[in-house]
Amino acid sequence: MARVNENFLKLPGSYLFSTIGKKVKEYQKANPDKKVIRLGIGDVTLPLPEAVVKALHTAADEMAVKETFRGYAPDLGYEFLRSAVVEHDFKSRGVELSIDEVFISDGAKSDSANIQEIFAADSRIAVCDPVYPVYVDSNVMAGRTGSYDAKTGRFSNVIYMPCTAENNFVPELPGETPDIIYLCFPNNPTGAALKKDELQKWVDYANEKKAVIIFDAAYEAYITQSDVPHSIYECEGAKTCAVELRSFSKNAGFTGTRLAYTVVPKELTVDGVALGALWARRHGTKFNGAPYMIQRAGEAVYSEEGKKQVAEMVGYYMRNAKVILDGLKTAGYTVSGGVDSPYIWLKTPNGMGSWEFFDYLLENADVVGTPGAGFGPSGEGYFRLTAFGSYENTLEAVLRIKKLGS
Amino acid sequence: MARVNENFLKLPGSYLFSTIGKKVKEYQKANPDKKVIRLGIGDVTLPLPEAVVKALHTAADEMAVKETFRGYAPDLGYEFLRSAVVEHDFKSRGVELSIDEVFISDGAKSDSANIQEIFAADSRIAVCDPVYPVYVDSNVMAGRTGSYDAKTGRFSNVIYMPCTAENNFVPELPGETPDIIYLCFPNNPTGAALKKDELQKWVDYANEKKAVIIFDAAYEAYITQSDVPHSIYECEGAKTCAVELRSFSKNAGFTGTRLAYTVVPKELTVDGVALGALWARRHGTKFNGAPYMIQRAGEAVYSEEGKKQVAEMVGYYMRNAKVILDGLKTAGYTVSGGVDSPYIWLKTPNGMGSWEFFDYLLENADVVGTPGAGFGPSGEGYFRLTAFGSYENTLEAVLRIKKLGS
Repeated sequence: MARVNENFLKLPGSYLFSTIGKKVKEYQKANPDKKVIRLGIGDVTLPLPEAVVKALHTAADEMAVKETFRGYAPDLGYEFLRSAVVEHDFKSRGVELSIDEVFISDGAKSDSANIQEIFAADSRIAVCDPVYPVYVDSNVMAGRTGSYDAKTGRFSNVIYMPCTAENNFVPELPGETPDIIYLCFPNNPTGAALKKDELQKWVDYANEKKAVIIFDAAYEAYITQSDVPHSIYECEGAKTCAVELRSFSKNAGFTGTRLAYTVVPKELTVDGVALGALWARRHGTKFNGAPYMIQRAGEAVYSEEGKKQVAEMVGYYMRNAKVILDGLKTAGYTVSGGVDSPYIWLKTPNGMGSWEFFDYLLENADVVGTPGAGFGPSGEGYFRLTAFGSYENTLEAVLRIKKLGS
Repeated sequence: MARVNENFLKLPGSYLFSTIGKKVKEYQKANPDKKVIRLGIGDVTLPLPEAVVKALHTAADEMAVKETFRGYAPDLGYEFLRSAVVEHDFKSRGVELSIDEVFISDGAKSDSANIQEIFAADSRIAVCDPVYPVYVDSNVMAGRTGSYDAKTGRFSNVIYMPCTAENNFVPELPGETPDIIYLCFPNNPTGAALKKDELQKWVDYANEKKAVIIFDAAYEAYITQSDVPHSIYECEGAKTCAVELRSFSKNAGFTGTRLAYTVVPKELTVDGVALGALWARRHGTKFNGAPYMIQRAGEAVYSEEGKKQVAEMVGYYMRNAKVILDGLKTAGYTVSGGVDSPYIWLKTPNGMGSWEFFDYLLENADVVGTPGAGFGPSGEGYFRLTAFGSYENTLEAVLRIKKLGS
């Protein structure tokens, strides 16, 4: 008799962004004349860079001809893309990697959800609070988190590291020792960045405790300050304790195109087992490679033309970030993030709850953001806006919010 | 202290096709002048259909312009593709589905590996032997299979259903009762097909035992006999006991383009929980949708032009199947499959082992096939050839095999 994975039933409600999507759909249906501006989900709005589109066309033409047609891709990615990654994302920053330490995938969301599978079922995880929901939810599904307490909004067997105004949104080393530590910096959702010495502290801690850090660097392209590391491997000793997740979504606009990679250094072994070998085995069994065309598109991101176009896109979004940051400050909001990150994190005014402010903003300004509480209990009383809208919409949204007062 | 998922360490050796790849690479390196013909891995060789390439170009152009650019796809797939699936793959065969019973993904390999995640950790699985390795390996990783016995090549907690010449490669209902039953028909690797009354027996059995059938129909496009069902839902009662996996790889040549879907009917509940809701939640958490462009390419498969081109491709490969089937019979081999399937299953001559015959064929005919033993112990003494080569190479390979005698 079949039985379900009961861990799934512990998940409270639906995935955050599905809930937001439904709410907005209903509101738009009830108010068809309202022009809703979406600064909620972290989705980009600018088209793909020209160099990427060109590569897609070229690859599509290759797929049309027998001589250049490509069937199954190598599970772990084509060498042309892995080489480009090693060269442009790491060597350029003084980090030496070999191409078999780079594993191409269909997205950082998948990678961040799947990476837990290579660890023991009873591993103890530590996450920031607030946090990107996928880290926790994927561990819930795997039965690693204990039971959910609706009152506290927390799972019994997860170590939460609050990131609030009190600690400047930088987590403190946990009191209890975790086996796996999820860190995302520049952070989603708070937009906070870690300086190199702050990240080094985590690397040293993980090496001392023999814990593994899952370092999500999906937003590294938005870093503007020179003392903020783009890769955890810029810290000494990180290769023996850290996996790094990277994405093409937020820099090159691949949210609907799907491409990412994970770095698992060869030095990273647990109980004498190379984590890279386990990850390769997982890829080889439960994944079948990213599409050839998309990998070629990813390669084009590293061309001279591609790099220039990506920098322009990032610049465009960061101008939005400044508009939001400055505008909200002027309006009297308490805001952070937005300097090394496309996310602006604001304190909800007048003690409003996160979801209360969500409804308030949607109904009174037709602006969609993301309630901080959706990212964890310490996100209550906060709200995330993203810089991924158009410049015009961003200006308009900020104007509308200013009109509300605060 | 981090610890690894020790279930991974139970996996014997590497993934079958990686091993074959390495062996062939080494052989080719040592014999650079030899023209090796690959009829091993089930990868297609014809280019993408024109209609599909056209759709890819159109979609790439849409991604280049702000007004038509697409970011995150709906996790479960675009409605345009789900509608086309419902209409063309099911309605046309008398099966009524609604679009929210269709879940778009990046491949049937991923789906067949991931589907086990929604079931209880201690579920007992039943698989055919020989079998597509992913069904078992994904369950090994999840800790569901017990320990591996290198002598028998079997896991202690898996119900194996031998498919051999004795039962005409059609599995018998198992003596012990499984919770989850994996069936792939037309079968990989044996090429055997199930008639409707044979499949109905399985559906009735699953409903009686409250087991769930994972029905892998990746090869349905190759069915030529009218009494072989294309979908398990052609059998009465299948909607209360079966999930169906479909792929665009083998019909439309998407092995390197990546697209598939899984059907989970609404009637399919386990302990009052709709499996579709769990699968949707898994998709929403651990996957981020198939690329927009690829979904448009999939839609084009169902256009009038696309259907015609796909039929031509399938016809091309099935001509190869006939060449292999007839050629090997003439050469005195015992062969099956190849009628409703692109796979030909042959008995190795002179009591040779599967891997022994692999080496023999590679070294003496420069032809690559797949050792039956790689698919499970009951595959020992058998060998798989595929119809996915070019017509010329297939003719040449059969000629070379004939020359060897049998």
